[in-house]
Amino acid sequence: MPNLYVALTHYPVVNKSGDIITSAVTNLDLHDISRAAKTYGVKSFYVVTPLKDQQVLAQRIIAHWTAGTGAAYNPARRRALETIKVVDSISDVVEDIRHFEDRYPKTAVTCARRYPSSIGYEKFRSILKTAMPHLLVFGTAWGLAEAFISEADYILDPIMGSTDYNHLSVRTAAGIILDRLLGV
Amino acid sequence: MPNLYVALTHYPVVNKSGDIITSAVTNLDLHDISRAAKTYGVKSFYVVTPLKDQQVLAQRIIAHWTAGTGAAYNPARRRALETIKVVDSISDVVEDIRHFEDRYPKTAVTCARRYPSSIGYEKFRSILKTAMPHLLVFGTAWGLAEAFISEADYILDPIMGSTDYNHLSVRTAAGIILDRLLGV
Repeated sequence: MPNLYVALTHYPVVNKSGDIITSAVTNLDLHDISRAAKTYGVKSFYVVTPLKDQQVLAQRIIAHWTAGTGAAYNPARRRALETIKVVDSISDVVEDIRHFEDRYPKTAVTCARRYPSSIGYEKFRSILKTAMPHLLVFGTAWGLAEAFISEADYILDPIMGSTDYNHLSVRTAAGIILDRLLGV
Repeated sequence: MPNLYVALTHYPVVNKSGDIITSAVTNLDLHDISRAAKTYGVKSFYVVTPLKDQQVLAQRIIAHWTAGTGAAYNPARRRALETIKVVDSISDVVEDIRHFEDRYPKTAVTCARRYPSSIGYEKFRSILKTAMPHLLVFGTAWGLAEAFISEADYILDPIMGSTDYNHLSVRTAAGIILDRLLGV
């Protein structure tokens, strides 16, 4: 099994104009990405927001499906959503992983823009075959803030199809990237 | 460019108990799958429902992003959503493609269950390299009705990750399947 963690962060991300913002939590991001994480054997899926009301919202969605009526109605969804941890910051994610693994993870980020230093999926797929813990961070809104991207250990190539259109939702991009890295 | 069409159908699909139902249109299915379709060069994305009120709902969502305030706010989303055609039935989809292509498409379906006759993604990827039009049909709710699946020309293998969990959302599954078939 891969030693991979995934985080979806709502800060620091940029809006359409490139300003750094905190975005709102989207219900279906939690559902879709937790289900993909569960499918591909991701160890934990962190939902990152510094806003307390947004943390409460995320926890309410998760509780409905893990302890509420949703849990009995749809056990498969419970198994996915119970992999979610809601935290304040990426620093908290990294500390949580260190606590669990006894070492810090290497971080990888994704971006719709191409960077000179970005690496391909085959390469990162082989890196993941080592026992080293890795954290893959997805940004919401118009993507991760530049300063955050430049601090990551790895930047993954943008996902391109057979056209020049690259505006996938983060839900779809996360699924495709996990499939490229861990699909059989 | 591939000669591929995609349909998301809300009938005939099954509910949790296996009964044939008509499911409700989900806003983000339209967004996410149209954006993936645009990324991978799909010719048209059909949203299929026999329910008139659901057709009106789908058209309202599309109009907001293709002609309403959303179109000016987010042109990338406009380009995706304008590939959508809302129709009554899969028969209408097939006739629309025949009208455009001067021949009927071959149909392919996807299912979370494995069928003895299902084919892999590499095989269908090579089939798509021919000029023949193909229609890939995704089901909502608990998946396409059995009778519909058995009539398709091809059944694709279920998407499996590194676990036995296979409960991806249709949005995520559509993205992963298009990437496996048409990704570069």
